[in-house]
Amino acid sequence: MRRNLTVYDIAAEAGVSVATVSRVLNNNDKVAENTRYKIQSIIDKYDFKPNEVARSLFKNETKLIGCILPDITNPYYSTVLLEAEKYALMNGYTMMICNTRGDSDNYAMYLQTLVERQVTGIIYMGGESVETMQLHQLLKKYEDRLPIVMINWSMQDINCFCVQSDEEQGFLMLLDQIAKEGYRDVALLAGKRGVMPTELKVSLYQEAVRKGIFNEREEYLIDGEFSVEYGMKAMKQLLSLPVRPEVVIGINDIIAVGILNACHMHKLSVPEDIKIVGFDNINLSSVVYPSITTIGHDYENLARKAVDLIIDKTALVKRERIFTFPMEYICRESF
Amino acid sequence: MRRNLTVYDIAAEAGVSVATVSRVLNNNDKVAENTRYKIQSIIDKYDFKPNEVARSLFKNETKLIGCILPDITNPYYSTVLLEAEKYALMNGYTMMICNTRGDSDNYAMYLQTLVERQVTGIIYMGGESVETMQLHQLLKKYEDRLPIVMINWSMQDINCFCVQSDEEQGFLMLLDQIAKEGYRDVALLAGKRGVMPTELKVSLYQEAVRKGIFNEREEYLIDGEFSVEYGMKAMKQLLSLPVRPEVVIGINDIIAVGILNACHMHKLSVPEDIKIVGFDNINLSSVVYPSITTIGHDYENLARKAVDLIIDKTALVKRERIFTFPMEYICRESF
Repeated sequence: MRRNLTVYDIAAEAGVSVATVSRVLNNNDKVAENTRYKIQSIIDKYDFKPNEVARSLFKNETKLIGCILPDITNPYYSTVLLEAEKYALMNGYTMMICNTRGDSDNYAMYLQTLVERQVTGIIYMGGESVETMQLHQLLKKYEDRLPIVMINWSMQDINCFCVQSDEEQGFLMLLDQIAKEGYRDVALLAGKRGVMPTELKVSLYQEAVRKGIFNEREEYLIDGEFSVEYGMKAMKQLLSLPVRPEVVIGINDIIAVGILNACHMHKLSVPEDIKIVGFDNINLSSVVYPSITTIGHDYENLARKAVDLIIDKTALVKRERIFTFPMEYICRESF
Repeated sequence: MRRNLTVYDIAAEAGVSVATVSRVLNNNDKVAENTRYKIQSIIDKYDFKPNEVARSLFKNETKLIGCILPDITNPYYSTVLLEAEKYALMNGYTMMICNTRGDSDNYAMYLQTLVERQVTGIIYMGGESVETMQLHQLLKKYEDRLPIVMINWSMQDINCFCVQSDEEQGFLMLLDQIAKEGYRDVALLAGKRGVMPTELKVSLYQEAVRKGIFNEREEYLIDGEFSVEYGMKAMKQLLSLPVRPEVVIGINDIIAVGILNACHMHKLSVPEDIKIVGFDNINLSSVVYPSITTIGHDYENLARKAVDLIIDKTALVKRERIFTFPMEYICRESF
């Protein structure tokens, strides 16, 4: 078993400093020819690969991008990560992944770890209520030192970059489509209340009710959790009402799948008996039957913009902090 | 905007070598007290964080684990990665992720990149036919230099670690369960042929037919791709046969979801009219309705073992290379 050589071993054997070895590795011409020859022959002898770690120290860049997210098994996050990693690779960057698994302490801990590892920048995908005091302080400390990009998430008083989908435009487009088809008995299974994306969508739905676009029925708005189980349970509740909705909106695709499951269980045909729409366009919405009509994020451009902000050395000194991408109506079988 | 300081900046300001700065950072006592004081005060002045990159150079360990896999949006891979990352974190390691996206050239390119980045070890999750000559040569070159762990995958003549599920035991358990319930008309939608896991399962199924445990019907074995679409299409083909199978096995859960979709489309009740089983226990199999009975990998222990082999500095000099974990029968609604 051969131990991995480092620049320190090469320097020791050549009797020179690591800085000199580094100059040879980086083709810097400030090295005497005979010294260069001696070092190069040791490099050749061991088939020494210019170590990216050493190289990054001298160049002061690791070409690493850290990505902090709640849970990589959630297809929304894995789709963003896949796109980001693909684009990072094209630019010579490698991604590090950190799953917080919903533990708010992990957000701060991972941020600290990634800064210590000298990542070029950090992509943050937040979740529900992770805003601890500790995280806030750390973000304040690092916001001007390295690019931190939040995707579809933001925190008050933090001057990080924010790359986001235009969820207002997306959800209004969905409501418009439903109204245009003439449906007025429309329910919204809202998932978890008190988080920004939910409150935005609920207020747009309530406005449509106030304007008389949809019929006012209090029992058509049900909140709970962001899970398939909640979608099934809340849908069963809707199906027990005297007036059954014509269209049921899942505030995200995961809930929409739960709604679909409840329809299968009650032997209702979708979209003949009842129509379903979702939001996010995660992979799951396209593999179930019938496939779910939804509003899609521009995953590719969200991810590319986030990576661009990290690799563009001038981004931090520019003023622009928020970048918004339009969402898309994805017509499938359930509506 | 503050630029991130490096040990080189500190060394320059103190007029000492980086090695001396490093000794102070690592609490090495071979530094004169007044030199230590000078360096420490510069460190304090800039609130300089001991850089993990510099530290790793001196300690010759990056505490990085590289993970090469086909596609992180596939829930099988993301589940393994989540478990590996969780366990790596507990041991002070960070994960790097590389998606090959089915491009066989990417496997070799990523391997080279990760070695240059001095990762402590690499987790490989292969896919179909990625065994290029170039990859084989690189693996041969590095197999004794750093721990490379293949999860549920292996390559001939390569002496890497292999951490695997006992798919033979798992699939036999599934066939036994079906036979025990008295079903004899059993179909297998086999997905892509010519890859090891498929051929293993097909041969076990054919053996059960030869032994008379299941009825012999050639048209009950259909191959194709590993996709929901293939599962739907092949299931429609089965449903058009004069004798409809009692149980349909999807060789993985993705195909089983396609089978379920075809049943919904044909208004067949599962499991009343027809029974479905899958394999792998990915998240998808539990969120559809009815949820799919399947055979599960021991994701947690597979991932932990892979990480353990990387962080255990003695693993490379031991002889043991293959570690096998039993699979589990997960009884749900579809069977």
